[in-house]
Amino acid sequence: MVTRKDVAKMAGVSEATVSRVFNGVGPMKENTRQKVLAAAKELNYHPNAVARSFALGKSGHIGVILPYVPKVHLFSTYYFSEILSGIGEGVRRQGCDMLVMFRSPDERTDYTEPYRSRKVDGCIFLGALDVPAQREGFRELHGQNMPFVLINQHYDNEPYSVVDADHEAGCYEAVKHLIDGGFRRIAFLNGSPEYSNSSDRLRGYLGALAEAGIDVRQELILDGNYSRTSGYAAAQKIAALGSEVDAVFSSNDRMAVGLMQGLKELGIAPGRDLAIVGYDDSEAAKLSDPPLTSVYVPFFEMGLRAAEGLLKQIEGSSGPGGSDRDIPVHERLSTRLVVRQSSLPVNK
Amino acid sequence: MVTRKDVAKMAGVSEATVSRVFNGVGPMKENTRQKVLAAAKELNYHPNAVARSFALGKSGHIGVILPYVPKVHLFSTYYFSEILSGIGEGVRRQGCDMLVMFRSPDERTDYTEPYRSRKVDGCIFLGALDVPAQREGFRELHGQNMPFVLINQHYDNEPYSVVDADHEAGCYEAVKHLIDGGFRRIAFLNGSPEYSNSSDRLRGYLGALAEAGIDVRQELILDGNYSRTSGYAAAQKIAALGSEVDAVFSSNDRMAVGLMQGLKELGIAPGRDLAIVGYDDSEAAKLSDPPLTSVYVPFFEMGLRAAEGLLKQIEGSSGPGGSDRDIPVHERLSTRLVVRQSSLPVNK
Repeated sequence: MVTRKDVAKMAGVSEATVSRVFNGVGPMKENTRQKVLAAAKELNYHPNAVARSFALGKSGHIGVILPYVPKVHLFSTYYFSEILSGIGEGVRRQGCDMLVMFRSPDERTDYTEPYRSRKVDGCIFLGALDVPAQREGFRELHGQNMPFVLINQHYDNEPYSVVDADHEAGCYEAVKHLIDGGFRRIAFLNGSPEYSNSSDRLRGYLGALAEAGIDVRQELILDGNYSRTSGYAAAQKIAALGSEVDAVFSSNDRMAVGLMQGLKELGIAPGRDLAIVGYDDSEAAKLSDPPLTSVYVPFFEMGLRAAEGLLKQIEGSSGPGGSDRDIPVHERLSTRLVVRQSSLPVNK
Repeated sequence: MVTRKDVAKMAGVSEATVSRVFNGVGPMKENTRQKVLAAAKELNYHPNAVARSFALGKSGHIGVILPYVPKVHLFSTYYFSEILSGIGEGVRRQGCDMLVMFRSPDERTDYTEPYRSRKVDGCIFLGALDVPAQREGFRELHGQNMPFVLINQHYDNEPYSVVDADHEAGCYEAVKHLIDGGFRRIAFLNGSPEYSNSSDRLRGYLGALAEAGIDVRQELILDGNYSRTSGYAAAQKIAALGSEVDAVFSSNDRMAVGLMQGLKELGIAPGRDLAIVGYDDSEAAKLSDPPLTSVYVPFFEMGLRAAEGLLKQIEGSSGPGGSDRDIPVHERLSTRLVVRQSSLPVNK
């Protein structure tokens, strides 16, 4: 094992100087630094992770790319916080650390840079959108065999590694629950269309209606963007529809909470005048008044599996000729309906 | 500006080879690698962050040390998620990324390693405890002038940089609000004593009682650990005290929510039979039934300021003879009482 002493001897400096070079502490003559670094290289001395990463081409970091959304406390949203907790658990088990990076989904970003600069060995993408900028970025990563996993977002006809949940089945089950409860005029409050899970839910809604022989009415399909305010705004539209609506499926709990608040202000009692079903089964669902029927999604498990799958890919891709294509991750986890007071049957 | 071409020429290899060396892609003869690296050093060529970190002694990463707590979804707790959102915003503004590391607070950990190995330029510690292992670790960091900032935790007689909130005043205000509402038999549900903010709150409680000439009764001071279950367990003790208690201050909302659930199951109506005040002003406080009077703590702002302060320290410490002691961070942000239905005055 090469020691600091060997490097000091070869470079003709003190051991303290060698440490100062590698710890980057205090002032240092450039040519002294070069002498020490050259000696270290010659002796293949690796005092630290940076040096090791030169030798091994590994950083020991998993990158987690989050969409930058101004003013939104991203970690404070149930969706992101649960997934991040799962990723955190997964990387911790492997003795890795997670490098959290905020990137704007709409801007063309060179996702390969953190790999090339050895900041990360692989990345997990949260909140990815189906927009050209991101499609290009992912195509580039994939083309260069740089391991990455998408969570809760899939792109048709692309072979990318994805850990997703079965949102079509989840929404189908929720809408079927309303139909079984005697509701027929069911509005659908959707999230932003750039997310694959939004269209997945819409398919579930349409499937449940078709199965029950209920005609689809476009005016009952409302656009939201997963924010509480967009749910609050939808209350106006729902109220305007009056008796044409007897139940609402909201594509996440956050919108459902905003919707219920808006309805109350308009004198409509959620759970009594109108059945409401949310999605995510967040804390808010348990605490809201009335408690909100919702669809549980195993976000923590999704984050955990994405981390585990990515780490396998990284091992697989480390060998010569290795590639993330060797060990793709394709998981679709099941959801579960959780019935509470907000969706009591009409014939109660 | 030195280019890849210059390096290739000097090392006598192709430009593609230079790229492969620095991108760590594919197999590579060791002496070819050494030739390229030597040439790059000689020409001071910095193709990527790792090379730059060699030259500058900077990683561009802020370390965020989180306590590892098995089975707890840390990001999903309001406290951590808000602070992390603030840190994330702060590092993003500076074009840095955050390296999230989970460490067990009770185990002796060499906190200097991520600095020495250039994984981070500085660290922010969340959920630090006043235990010997962490005290030693911080003393070591401080002794080596490695920049770090503690959030919401201070150590008496230590000069460490801290971003804290005024929990003594926050709790004082909450208890005074109960006293002003006509309550005199106020129980205090404390959090784990290893946190400085727990003893800060206790001082606020004692101060408010003293000011009102109310004797302290030890049996009304209950131990919790900030978990919902510890609040739920406290309901039994509160119920057993019967009419000796007319109000409860809980040191966080999480325990208050558990307490209210437990009280309901025992036939005691929170907000009617017993006034409750929580702490943190989390989502749960707004959504709980009845809505919970709580103390707002600017956790996001605390995270943001810690990141900004740490980044200033890092700049300060990068120069010769620089040290984190140059620019210590000592902030104590104000809290704010938010009154809701759970603490209606007795003479309502």
